[in-house]
Amino acid sequence: MQELEKAPEIERWGKFELSLPGPQDGNPFTDVSFAARFRQGHRIVEADGFYDGQGCYRVRFMPDTLGKWSYETVSNVPKLNLVQGMFTCVEPSPGNHGPVGVDREVHFAYADGKPFFPFGTTSYVWNHQEEELQELTLRSLAEAGSFNKIRMCVFPKHYDYNLNEPALYPFAGSLEEGWDFTAFDPAYWQHLERRIEDLQQLGIEADLILFHPYDRWGFAEMSPETDDFYLRYTIARLSAYRNIWWSLANEFDLMKAKTMRDWDRFFRIIQERDPYGHLRSIHNWHHPGIHYRSNLHWYDHGKPWVTHASIQHHDLHFVEEWQETYRKPIVVDECRYEGNLNHGWGNITAERMVECFWQGMLNGGYVTHGETFLHEDNIIWWSHGGTLHGESPSRIQFLRQIIEEGPQLDRLKTDFHWDIAAGGVDGEYYLAYFGSSRPGFRMLSLPEGITFTIELIDTWNMTMTSLPGTYEGNCRVDLPGKPYQALRIQAINQQT
Amino acid sequence: MQELEKAPEIERWGKFELSLPGPQDGNPFTDVSFAARFRQGHRIVEADGFYDGQGCYRVRFMPDTLGKWSYETVSNVPKLNLVQGMFTCVEPSPGNHGPVGVDREVHFAYADGKPFFPFGTTSYVWNHQEEELQELTLRSLAEAGSFNKIRMCVFPKHYDYNLNEPALYPFAGSLEEGWDFTAFDPAYWQHLERRIEDLQQLGIEADLILFHPYDRWGFAEMSPETDDFYLRYTIARLSAYRNIWWSLANEFDLMKAKTMRDWDRFFRIIQERDPYGHLRSIHNWHHPGIHYRSNLHWYDHGKPWVTHASIQHHDLHFVEEWQETYRKPIVVDECRYEGNLNHGWGNITAERMVECFWQGMLNGGYVTHGETFLHEDNIIWWSHGGTLHGESPSRIQFLRQIIEEGPQLDRLKTDFHWDIAAGGVDGEYYLAYFGSSRPGFRMLSLPEGITFTIELIDTWNMTMTSLPGTYEGNCRVDLPGKPYQALRIQAINQQT
Repeated sequence: MQELEKAPEIERWGKFELSLPGPQDGNPFTDVSFAARFRQGHRIVEADGFYDGQGCYRVRFMPDTLGKWSYETVSNVPKLNLVQGMFTCVEPSPGNHGPVGVDREVHFAYADGKPFFPFGTTSYVWNHQEEELQELTLRSLAEAGSFNKIRMCVFPKHYDYNLNEPALYPFAGSLEEGWDFTAFDPAYWQHLERRIEDLQQLGIEADLILFHPYDRWGFAEMSPETDDFYLRYTIARLSAYRNIWWSLANEFDLMKAKTMRDWDRFFRIIQERDPYGHLRSIHNWHHPGIHYRSNLHWYDHGKPWVTHASIQHHDLHFVEEWQETYRKPIVVDECRYEGNLNHGWGNITAERMVECFWQGMLNGGYVTHGETFLHEDNIIWWSHGGTLHGESPSRIQFLRQIIEEGPQLDRLKTDFHWDIAAGGVDGEYYLAYFGSSRPGFRMLSLPEGITFTIELIDTWNMTMTSLPGTYEGNCRVDLPGKPYQALRIQAINQQT
Repeated sequence: MQELEKAPEIERWGKFELSLPGPQDGNPFTDVSFAARFRQGHRIVEADGFYDGQGCYRVRFMPDTLGKWSYETVSNVPKLNLVQGMFTCVEPSPGNHGPVGVDREVHFAYADGKPFFPFGTTSYVWNHQEEELQELTLRSLAEAGSFNKIRMCVFPKHYDYNLNEPALYPFAGSLEEGWDFTAFDPAYWQHLERRIEDLQQLGIEADLILFHPYDRWGFAEMSPETDDFYLRYTIARLSAYRNIWWSLANEFDLMKAKTMRDWDRFFRIIQERDPYGHLRSIHNWHHPGIHYRSNLHWYDHGKPWVTHASIQHHDLHFVEEWQETYRKPIVVDECRYEGNLNHGWGNITAERMVECFWQGMLNGGYVTHGETFLHEDNIIWWSHGGTLHGESPSRIQFLRQIIEEGPQLDRLKTDFHWDIAAGGVDGEYYLAYFGSSRPGFRMLSLPEGITFTIELIDTWNMTMTSLPGTYEGNCRVDLPGKPYQALRIQAINQQT
């Protein structure tokens, strides 16, 4: 039993870490069990530890309540067993709102209650590129201000425009001599953690993709035992980062070596081993309606361990239907990307990308961006990061400002008709979006007895214009008769 | 028994008409039965006659084979019974290809075998407007050259922007004193026939809508007996016009007084009384996917008396699915209209309207245009006809030229991928359309061993550019990276 050191201070939802020296002989990844029990009053939370190479064992913990916490390690190695200590959990620093969870059934909020509106982007293996390019990606994210979530992979990716070898791999071994699926490369994981921390500094959630089909190394076809071993190590290392989301897969239905039972098991492992219940989802490839003759099925997002639906689909009209089906937040994590790529999923216009965001959000869901412009050095945001070249990020940032000023957007009793995407809070606040439709005027049926102001939003030109007068009940709104217009309709506070 | 007159000459698919004087007392519409049996060799075709007012009884016949035909009338009035005569059916005049029927399961052709590619427009009650406006509509149709089918109603229409009274009504009686549902107003029908002939002169099929829900006169809620009486009269008068198509209803599912059994009966009446088997369809309102919570169902276009599916839907991706479901021609007779109307179905851009045509046609279906621009005198093409103001008709005419130069577009074994609408004849001819996608290049998988030329079509700017060189097998096509491009790919004839 070790002596108690002076208790350090850890901010709420910050990362406490205990490092202990331990055995280096044999295979520490498989031979040594190491965890810690964190206690506050009668509450005990157990967190798995992990071997970080060079005889160093670590266990991490993200405290969610203020005050004193004590801990005690558990190991099959005496030297690592029953090590005790304490820390004090203090108020979070500004910008730390805790991890994101589900809020009000179909929305998200940080642990401190602040609503979180996901504005995602996709850069699958930005973390596997040259260091300089990774730094550029982080600067691009900071400058754009458009995004607060990024989809990214643990494993490297093999696909068109993505044929380079990464500098580091999650597993020990090498491409030439084969992988040691009983050991990890700590350098890889330390680098990944640094990037997750970089994202955290920018206020960006890491929607971490644990498996994907685009593989030439064998990582998509590991044994069930290796899959589970890898998942437990990943969870032990990363779950104390408050900005982690678990995305079980990109396009799970293209991973022919996995069955629905495998995905069920992965969900249950994560549910069991992640002490904080970070968000969990799984992302499809197959689209009903496009590949309608396919035998593929979506994973059932209704299963209890799925926290939200992470959907690939091009038609944002369906958000309402999915929301009613699953009664969970709907995140359309791929709806085709802005660009001019040869591939069909990678050449929509910026206008369409922005339209997807407005439609998806106002229908009650959330939407994720991607960018795929042909580039002389094959540096394409969707995979490599780098520079954002498109016209959609500034419009997404404009939408994000509007959304973050308002309430969570619920389904409305007020009927704006089928051709308009509209969300808000009945009687108080509405956002209504006309998309590529271009009415010259519109009759609205606002609630009687409440006076509203209306602002006309040009979502493409990023202007907002107060319309003259006030509005109530059945009323006419004159519109410019051009595409990509929206309305912000707000009740005048009776108290002022 | 009357003496035989000198046998007149009637062109094939022309209209023979016999007029006989008969009783004016009582109610000739209900009291007198009148028909004729037309005979060529052992073949006998019976056509119903009708009362045309002022003691005049007529029976019409559209001969479909050359040579001598004889006839004999059948009536419960002795004077109208057993009247005999002859005529000679001669070669059709240029431009007369006969009525349109189904060809090769999912396509259309005239009776003489010439393929018919429907390029429809919609002007529901152009025939109920002031005479001058009707003439303008006909001139607009002729000048545009875009359209060879028009959707139009027998009954007047009551709806926004359509509140005037027509000059004539199908039934006898009046708005003030009530309708006599046992008698028709011949003047109404004579006028309608003139308009159908005017359309025939322009090479335009009259897709005649027999019932619709937009009614303030009671025509949408007549008794079953009156419905059937009206149908039989309509068929007797109009089926000898070779450019008639029977559209049982516009938006049948909004006609609350009718049941599916009623629609079945109407189809059977038409099937039984129309001697020529003109095309028969029924048009929905409800969209699966948009009104997904609705309990409404489509009429089953698979029923044997339905010749083709007349669909309202905004998403032309589904054409392939409908075609495989029904194994009949798919005509998307409403996919929203070009314009700036307040209503959601009436304010899409010209770009979108044209995109619907290209997508729908290349997916193996056919598409119908409509136009709904706000107008100071409420003269809107979709209902009233008049002048075409939009930017889509010229692009539709450009597409029509391309389509009419080529073969009927079938589903392909050659895979152009899900994001492209493509049709043609495998190994010979392909049209492939990128829609609003904008690839910078594309890899094609054309058949090996056949050399192709490729033309790049800018469907919006209406240009066609031969791409340099020839193409075969897996090949790359450089593209301009902007929306609304298509390719025409044709095998080089080995014999030249």
